[in-house]
Amino acid sequence: MAGEEKTLESTRVFSGRVIGVRVDRVRLPDGRESTREVVEHRGAVVIAALNDRQEVMLVRQFRKPVEAVLWELPAGTLEEGEEPLACARRELKEETGLEAEEWVPVTQFYSSPGFCNERLHLFWAGRLRQGEAAADADENLTGHWVPLEEALEMARRGEIADAKTLVGLLSLRYWRR
Amino acid sequence: MAGEEKTLESTRVFSGRVIGVRVDRVRLPDGRESTREVVEHRGAVVIAALNDRQEVMLVRQFRKPVEAVLWELPAGTLEEGEEPLACARRELKEETGLEAEEWVPVTQFYSSPGFCNERLHLFWAGRLRQGEAAADADENLTGHWVPLEEALEMARRGEIADAKTLVGLLSLRYWRR
Repeated sequence: MAGEEKTLESTRVFSGRVIGVRVDRVRLPDGRESTREVVEHRGAVVIAALNDRQEVMLVRQFRKPVEAVLWELPAGTLEEGEEPLACARRELKEETGLEAEEWVPVTQFYSSPGFCNERLHLFWAGRLRQGEAAADADENLTGHWVPLEEALEMARRGEIADAKTLVGLLSLRYWRR
Repeated sequence: MAGEEKTLESTRVFSGRVIGVRVDRVRLPDGRESTREVVEHRGAVVIAALNDRQEVMLVRQFRKPVEAVLWELPAGTLEEGEEPLACARRELKEETGLEAEEWVPVTQFYSSPGFCNERLHLFWAGRLRQGEAAADADENLTGHWVPLEEALEMARRGEIADAKTLVGLLSLRYWRR
């Protein structure tokens, strides 16, 4: 079976700036009880921006949870009430200075639905114009143009280790008409 | 810049069965301070098992955080000290009853490195033999053989909305020799 789990009781255990955490006591479809730890997140956008030379914009960013600088597609968290497309325009501009005339909503997916509700909205961006970047004060990142084929080889070799970036690059290579 | 962030102080705010949560006060490369909310997770495996008819094994599973039944590749959390390959063999057998003679470690990636350290180990599995499934008592899921090409169309249409499953299916289609 793959039936629903009814919430019997929900206990908030953490309320932060980026995430919240609650523990739900649930009734399983077979009648027994269990608990579910749930990380709550507002959702985010990820942008695969390709220029006329078939280069994709990647950012290098230090990520505290994994204590490493990763290669990622530009991305960012939705603000309260913000539309995904508006967020994508804002994040691409802030992180890289790029503005795009062409936006394609590709798909939506969950980053880790077993314990977290974060939903990612993937966009392709094209017809780009370079402006000034202005990243959040506490983000430290740098943008780099990488040929799409080279980015895919980096992904194949394990040098790109971020799920949303792998989905974005593979979608750009294999799903774009 | 994409420099390191030095931890000044770390506060544990939650210790659960599946996840832990801490808040780090950090020194940014430019000298200012900020905080990072970090979800700690033991890591997990994800298995793309393909049979001789070019069908991939997908499971339907209710996911409390998103209140939905999702299509996913078989997957599961590493036990304390468990090797990823041993975990992959165990989870594939428990969730689907399948045993595989051929195992290929494909790549590793983070599900959401901005706020979580969960690392996923992706394997391809082949030369399969059907045995008895025996899922964890509190998992309710069903396994289904789906032609790989059909699974990719489901992904393209947004009917598969799980990041690790998208990476696994796209890798199986485009990276396998």
